[in-house]
Amino acid sequence: MTPPYTIPALDRALEPALRAKLDGLAKPPGSLGRMEALALQLGLIQQRLDPVVQRAVLFVFAGDHGLTQEGVSSYPASVTVAMVQSFLAQRASANAFAQATDTEVRVVDAGVAAELAPHPALLDAKIALGTANAAREPAMTLAQCETALARGAKIAADAAAEGFDVIALGEMGIGNTSSAALLMHRLAPAPLAACVGVGTGHDEAGLARKQAALAHAAARTDASDPLTVLAEFGGFEIAMMAGAILGAARANIPVIVDGFIASAAALAAVRLAPEVLPYCIFAHCSAEAGHRLMLESLGASPLLDLGLRLGEGTGGLLCVPLLRAAARILTDIVSLEDVLAGRL
Amino acid sequence: MTPPYTIPALDRALEPALRAKLDGLAKPPGSLGRMEALALQLGLIQQRLDPVVQRAVLFVFAGDHGLTQEGVSSYPASVTVAMVQSFLAQRASANAFAQATDTEVRVVDAGVAAELAPHPALLDAKIALGTANAAREPAMTLAQCETALARGAKIAADAAAEGFDVIALGEMGIGNTSSAALLMHRLAPAPLAACVGVGTGHDEAGLARKQAALAHAAARTDASDPLTVLAEFGGFEIAMMAGAILGAARANIPVIVDGFIASAAALAAVRLAPEVLPYCIFAHCSAEAGHRLMLESLGASPLLDLGLRLGEGTGGLLCVPLLRAAARILTDIVSLEDVLAGRL
Repeated sequence: MTPPYTIPALDRALEPALRAKLDGLAKPPGSLGRMEALALQLGLIQQRLDPVVQRAVLFVFAGDHGLTQEGVSSYPASVTVAMVQSFLAQRASANAFAQATDTEVRVVDAGVAAELAPHPALLDAKIALGTANAAREPAMTLAQCETALARGAKIAADAAAEGFDVIALGEMGIGNTSSAALLMHRLAPAPLAACVGVGTGHDEAGLARKQAALAHAAARTDASDPLTVLAEFGGFEIAMMAGAILGAARANIPVIVDGFIASAAALAAVRLAPEVLPYCIFAHCSAEAGHRLMLESLGASPLLDLGLRLGEGTGGLLCVPLLRAAARILTDIVSLEDVLAGRL
Repeated sequence: MTPPYTIPALDRALEPALRAKLDGLAKPPGSLGRMEALALQLGLIQQRLDPVVQRAVLFVFAGDHGLTQEGVSSYPASVTVAMVQSFLAQRASANAFAQATDTEVRVVDAGVAAELAPHPALLDAKIALGTANAAREPAMTLAQCETALARGAKIAADAAAEGFDVIALGEMGIGNTSSAALLMHRLAPAPLAACVGVGTGHDEAGLARKQAALAHAAARTDASDPLTVLAEFGGFEIAMMAGAILGAARANIPVIVDGFIASAAALAAVRLAPEVLPYCIFAHCSAEAGHRLMLESLGASPLLDLGLRLGEGTGGLLCVPLLRAAARILTDIVSLEDVLAGRL
C-alpha cells in the first residue's frame, strides 16, 4: 500500500434491509441495544444480511522505542523481548484471554531491538532494531513509515485471505504509551498534558520525567500531516497497526481496536483515510488517562470498560465473543413473521 | 431446601494467596482491572488457586403472571409460550448468544400458563399455570413459594453435579418486570415510582396503566419479610431463580445474574440469605429504569453496559467468556519469577 491511502467509502446501500431485518426479529425492536448496532456494522462491512464472525486472530505488534532512553517508562526496554517470548510460549495475558475466546495469537516483529529466533507464530516484519529517540530526532524516516504501513496492510489482507473473519490489534513495546501520547497530541489534536498518563505504571517522579521528555519531543517539530507525524513520533508497531487498519478496511473485514496505543494507530489511520472508521470496532476504554478523550476525538464509544490498562490486545479479545454474538443476531434469531406463522 | 435459608459464608482464607498469585504474574499489578477482581472471586468460590471455568449453562426460567390481567404488559401473556417454543427450537435471542459463547441452554417451566409438550431441553418444574393476580391477591401461596425456591436450588445443585462450572440465569415471562418492580419496591426498599419502567416496550398510557396496577398491588399488603414478599408479588420464575442462586452458593459455583428480573431474584435471595452475594456475578446493567438503583441496593456493579433490555439471560451469556478469561488469568499467565528465571 503506497500513498495516497485512499479507501473506498463503506457501501451503506444494504443498511435499510439490515435495519428491517433487525426490526423484524422476534423480540422488541432495539432491545438488544448496542449489540444490534454492532450487527448492523458487521452486515455492512461484510455486505451481507447474514454476516458470519467465527475465526478470529489477534496480531500482537511488537516494537521498541528510542524514547525509552529518556526514561519515559518504568520498565527497561528489554521487557519487550521478554514479553515477545511470553507470547510465543502462549503464557502472556493476551494468550490467556485468547484461549478463553477461541482466538489465534500471532506476534509481529515490527521493530523489536533484538534479533528474534524464528517461530511458527512469529511474523518477521521488522523495520529496524527499534525507533530513533523521538525526543531528539524523528522516530523513523518517511520511507520506514510507509514500509510499516504497507506491511501492516499486507498482514491484514493476508489474514482476510486466510479466512479470518475479524482481526484484533494488540501491541507490546516498552515506551509506546509515550509514542501514542505524542500522536494523539498532534493528530487529535489535544494539549499534551491531556494525552500523557502513567502507562503501565509510574510514580509521580516518573510521570514528570515522561511529561518533560514528551514536551521536548513535541517542541522539536510542528508537523501536523498524519504521515509525517507518524514518522516523527513512531513507533514501528503503531505505524504497522495503522497499516493493518487500512488493510482490513480494504479487505472488508472488521478490525478490533483495543486500548490507548491501538487507538492512536486508529487515529493515525483515520487521519490518513477517514473512510476506515466504520471498519473499526473500539473494544475497551483503557484506564490510561487520555484514552477517553482520544476516543471522543474519533467519535468512538468502546464496548467495554473493565479497568484494563495492560494493552497486548487484552480488551479486544474480550470483544471477540461480542462480535460473534452480534453476527448471530442476524442469522440465528427467528423473525416475528415466522413465529406468528408457526414456523419454528 | 427449606427455611431457614442459611448458606455458609464464603471462606476467604485463600484470599491472601490468590492476591499474591495475581500480583506475582508477569504484568503490572492490577493492570487487568476488574478481570483480576473476577479471577479472585472465582478462586474464592471454587476454593482453589487455579479456578476453571469452561462448561456453562443458561437456565431460562419461564412463568406467567396473573398481573397481566391488569394490562401491565404491552404483549399478550400467550407470548410466554411462544417464546418457550422459540428457545426450544434454538431460535431465540438467548440461543444466538449461547451459540456464540459456547453455552448450553435449558428451559425451566417454572409456571407457564399452558401444558408444554416434553422436550429434551425443557425441565418441568411447574408450580402452577401462572401466578394469581397480585393486584388482587397474593401471587402464590407461601408453600408454592417454598417449593419454587427448593426446585430452583435443586436445579443449580444438579447442574453443579453434572459438571457445569457456572450457571447463568435467564427468564421469560410476560409481565415479569412488574413482578420484579414490586419485589424491588418492597425489598430494596425503594419508592415504587423508582422501580417501574417501560419493560420490553410501553407507550405513555401503557406505562401509566402499569404504574396504577402496581400501586394497587403494593397497597394490598405491607409485608416486608422476604419470603412473604416473594409470595405476594411472585412470579414463579423469579422465586425459582432465587432458589437457583441459593443452590449455586451451596454448591460453590458462580451464578451469573443478568438484567432487571434476575436481579430482583438475586435481591430476594440476598434478603433470605445475605451470604449468597459473593457467589453472584452481575452481568449487565439493563436499560430498564430502576435496574441501576436495584444494583446499588445490592452493592453490585455489573460487568457490561450495552443497552440490552430484553432479558432471557442475553447479558449474562455475554459475560460467560469474561469468566472463562478471568479464570485463565490464574492458570495461564506466567509468573514474573518464572520469566526472570528464564522459565517459559
